[in-house]
Amino acid sequence: MAQIQKDSASLVADWETLRRIFIRPEDDNSKKVLVKYMEQILFGLHDFLNKHVGVTEEISLIKLAEEYTDTKINKNPQKKLANVIKDIIDEIAPRAVNVASPYFIGHMTSAIPFFMVHLKAITAALNQNVIKIETSKVLSVLEKQILAKMHRMIFNFDETFYLEHVQNTETCLGVFTTGGTTANLTALWVARNKLFAPKDDFKSIETDGFYQAMKAHDLERVVILISKRGHFSFRKAGGVLGFGNQNVIPIDVDETRSIDLVKLKKKIKEFGADKKTKIAAIVGIAGATETGIIDPLPQLADICQKHGIHFHVDAAWGGPVLLSEKYSHLLKGIERADSVSIDCHKQFYMPMTAGMVYFKDPKALDQIVYHSSYVNRRGSVDLGIKTLEGSREANSLILDSSLKIMGSRGYALMIEYGIETARQFSEIIEKRPLFQLLTKPQLNIVTYRMIPENIREQLKTADEIERRRLDAILDDINTRIQRTQREAGKSFVSRTQLKINTTDDYDTVVLRCVIMNPMTNVSILNEILDEQESILKNILPATPFQ
Amino acid sequence: MAQIQKDSASLVADWETLRRIFIRPEDDNSKKVLVKYMEQILFGLHDFLNKHVGVTEEISLIKLAEEYTDTKINKNPQKKLANVIKDIIDEIAPRAVNVASPYFIGHMTSAIPFFMVHLKAITAALNQNVIKIETSKVLSVLEKQILAKMHRMIFNFDETFYLEHVQNTETCLGVFTTGGTTANLTALWVARNKLFAPKDDFKSIETDGFYQAMKAHDLERVVILISKRGHFSFRKAGGVLGFGNQNVIPIDVDETRSIDLVKLKKKIKEFGADKKTKIAAIVGIAGATETGIIDPLPQLADICQKHGIHFHVDAAWGGPVLLSEKYSHLLKGIERADSVSIDCHKQFYMPMTAGMVYFKDPKALDQIVYHSSYVNRRGSVDLGIKTLEGSREANSLILDSSLKIMGSRGYALMIEYGIETARQFSEIIEKRPLFQLLTKPQLNIVTYRMIPENIREQLKTADEIERRRLDAILDDINTRIQRTQREAGKSFVSRTQLKINTTDDYDTVVLRCVIMNPMTNVSILNEILDEQESILKNILPATPFQ
Repeated sequence: MAQIQKDSASLVADWETLRRIFIRPEDDNSKKVLVKYMEQILFGLHDFLNKHVGVTEEISLIKLAEEYTDTKINKNPQKKLANVIKDIIDEIAPRAVNVASPYFIGHMTSAIPFFMVHLKAITAALNQNVIKIETSKVLSVLEKQILAKMHRMIFNFDETFYLEHVQNTETCLGVFTTGGTTANLTALWVARNKLFAPKDDFKSIETDGFYQAMKAHDLERVVILISKRGHFSFRKAGGVLGFGNQNVIPIDVDETRSIDLVKLKKKIKEFGADKKTKIAAIVGIAGATETGIIDPLPQLADICQKHGIHFHVDAAWGGPVLLSEKYSHLLKGIERADSVSIDCHKQFYMPMTAGMVYFKDPKALDQIVYHSSYVNRRGSVDLGIKTLEGSREANSLILDSSLKIMGSRGYALMIEYGIETARQFSEIIEKRPLFQLLTKPQLNIVTYRMIPENIREQLKTADEIERRRLDAILDDINTRIQRTQREAGKSFVSRTQLKINTTDDYDTVVLRCVIMNPMTNVSILNEILDEQESILKNILPATPFQ
Repeated sequence: MAQIQKDSASLVADWETLRRIFIRPEDDNSKKVLVKYMEQILFGLHDFLNKHVGVTEEISLIKLAEEYTDTKINKNPQKKLANVIKDIIDEIAPRAVNVASPYFIGHMTSAIPFFMVHLKAITAALNQNVIKIETSKVLSVLEKQILAKMHRMIFNFDETFYLEHVQNTETCLGVFTTGGTTANLTALWVARNKLFAPKDDFKSIETDGFYQAMKAHDLERVVILISKRGHFSFRKAGGVLGFGNQNVIPIDVDETRSIDLVKLKKKIKEFGADKKTKIAAIVGIAGATETGIIDPLPQLADICQKHGIHFHVDAAWGGPVLLSEKYSHLLKGIERADSVSIDCHKQFYMPMTAGMVYFKDPKALDQIVYHSSYVNRRGSVDLGIKTLEGSREANSLILDSSLKIMGSRGYALMIEYGIETARQFSEIIEKRPLFQLLTKPQLNIVTYRMIPENIREQLKTADEIERRRLDAILDDINTRIQRTQREAGKSFVSRTQLKINTTDDYDTVVLRCVIMNPMTNVSILNEILDEQESILKNILPATPFQ
């Protein structure tokens, strides 16, 4: 340790020092130093988070970027560990985004329980790789158990089913991924492969490729249907998997902002009439990224069942609502899905990043099996045989531990608080004359926009052309409100684009709040709205809205 | 805190406790408790790692699995944080794999410097999401800087180039991924998209899909060429991206165990003669997973240049060798690649999991751009616009900090130690009469097998048929040696299958060692060989090899 702590002026990389950083220190003094560093990490960062009420220091990106232009790697050590930690606390943290602030309600990233830092540290200290049993042992077994627990939460089969599959090395109830994007990709990958049965010389799309699959099955087009509010990872998956992202077909939403079933059925009929087109999957959303809205899952399940189409539910956001006895009914129908994605770093409040995808059929993942000779051999229990990703950390240990510490009831309390606070927030918005609520929130996401008094008056009598002109002005105003508030650094809401009325043929800028931090309360939400009102007052004179 | 520490018998999830676990504690006593937990994580696990010299406790998987069959989620909290940590230290860790042991030389997972646990804890505590600037700010800027540093390490353009691109929001020198698998997938994704230029109604393979792309370009088959020793992620990428994994064509290796250039050229000629077939990419390996062998990169670069084919180098393993002035020449030619993958959790000694992929052309990643309206808007600096993955933790901060602490020289010392120890190890193997070295190691991976004396005698005069019979016996012996040693739990080497002679038409079981832990030394390696000799002695009487 003495070696590492010496003056930075004389820092050199030498063999003995390097060996020492691999061996954890034996003497009490060195141990104390290392623990002191952790104290700084836990509470030095904490002091910043507390002092720094707002979300981000006022420093322009351009100015910031100017400080990070040196592209040569230093040959000799530049800093001692202590100084690296100090610099992160003093220089990096204040210029990072305080996502833990209760005033940060713009994105699906929020405060996490403090014990998550401990659990992540444990994961790093063990440094297991769950791709294979030889680098994980008990962690692979534990991962299979937590996968079964989550599967049961979603699909709720009987005890016999779970006893058969929980530690079955031949079957697989789901897999951990690095996030919702690869979880959704994995689900569509399985759906794609299921679609193309072997035929004559054609073995599978996985071996023979997309082109040969289409020829063998005499098809010209394969599509995926999803509400317009579907996450952009589906378009990306469409591109990656070879469908073509224009074949991920967005279906309009109805006045509830969930998928319009009439239009969906029309589309299915249209494609059904074309023998050269097939539908690979229909996606239902359980908590849309922008609105939190849940699609009518039972009806989607009926449709998929009737037509024999793979039914995927993207519950990356809403999945943990299943832990709330009070609100799990909102996700009714999810148990009829063929596959379900859930993110761990969202409403399971885990650190970045971890996702999961589950399949009703324990054999479904056989569609994407890969072996090799040095790991993941045939018949082995290696978890990496059926995952998109290769090496993976044991995030399952964090989820397992967190459920032990909080129980499903602990998660439920947070979920319920978010839903109920969002409801109160929406009522406040409706009461304030300068605000327009877009939709009553179903979960904990609220969208709204600001409308200055005189524009509100003009809107009352405006025809379609005039309304469109006024909406463009409002787009400008709301964009500027969001930017000004973000740059002021006290609080943060995000913005997106939605139709105000289902009949509109254009999207309008709206503000978007995600209420997931248990420290965010009605009084803070009122402060955020107050700030927006005062920003509006300041920018109004400069706005050309005659 | 008091709330959390109460007796587990009375653990309930209540709102006040939950709020408190989000607010880091204010009073000194609570702080002390939290730091004490970190001490347990750092040194409790450490004590296990020290006491437990071997790699894994002797408990059968089946017995272990029996303990993890409860699939119901507990409603109320089961354990306090302190007990969760204690249980992990007492029950999970001893049944995990001690990948940090210097006797664990079987896989590319090893000890990591102790400061990595601190850095991972910082990443979790900040919990930034670098998908977008709004949840990362300075971390996105810092990530762009470290990407430029790595790009420079590989491609070594001039200062003007890097000043232009380091913080350029229009260009992208590379991206962080969650590992080598998605890094390789991203490279082939870009190569695939580049291949299909717009034509008449056809816009791109990304929008229109693989089938339309093939039709527009009048093709029947698109292939990727790679040495037989290529990582299995390439076959997987072939399947995912729609090429079909049988179109990832394995080319035999020559007597150096690197790609056979004669056979490669023959294959290119063969495909070139077929107007309906195109080569999307040729992959060169810089450190094969099983053998550590580096393909002849300059020659591959020549071939790719001549035929206008995308040249990808998989340097997931070998990439950091570039930091060694002594051995970087081994990777000569890598600077002529179109894309290069490097893993962070391998020879950058970072915790699981992080990878990177770099592109020579700063516009190459434009092939896979995805936008959305709530994040990653057009013209924004959001890093998530050009990545396969969505949400991502700031692993760049760990790499940046580690380079500051150790310098390139620090990494170089470790790389050089591994290469030189592997060389010594191979010499020892050659001297021991019961062992057969497969190839002289180029990097730090050594493959060999054991041959009992009498079989060695028989091999001297054996014809092809007899040799094959004896090799089958040796396969059985070496498989059993590897298993027995693993189960004994003192040390761990892995096994894979390679051809003994290039002319063989069958693979043979070999033992495989990866020398990356700086605590692994010649004396330990001798112990491991001694143990294998004594295992051989024990199993020989039971082996039917007359």
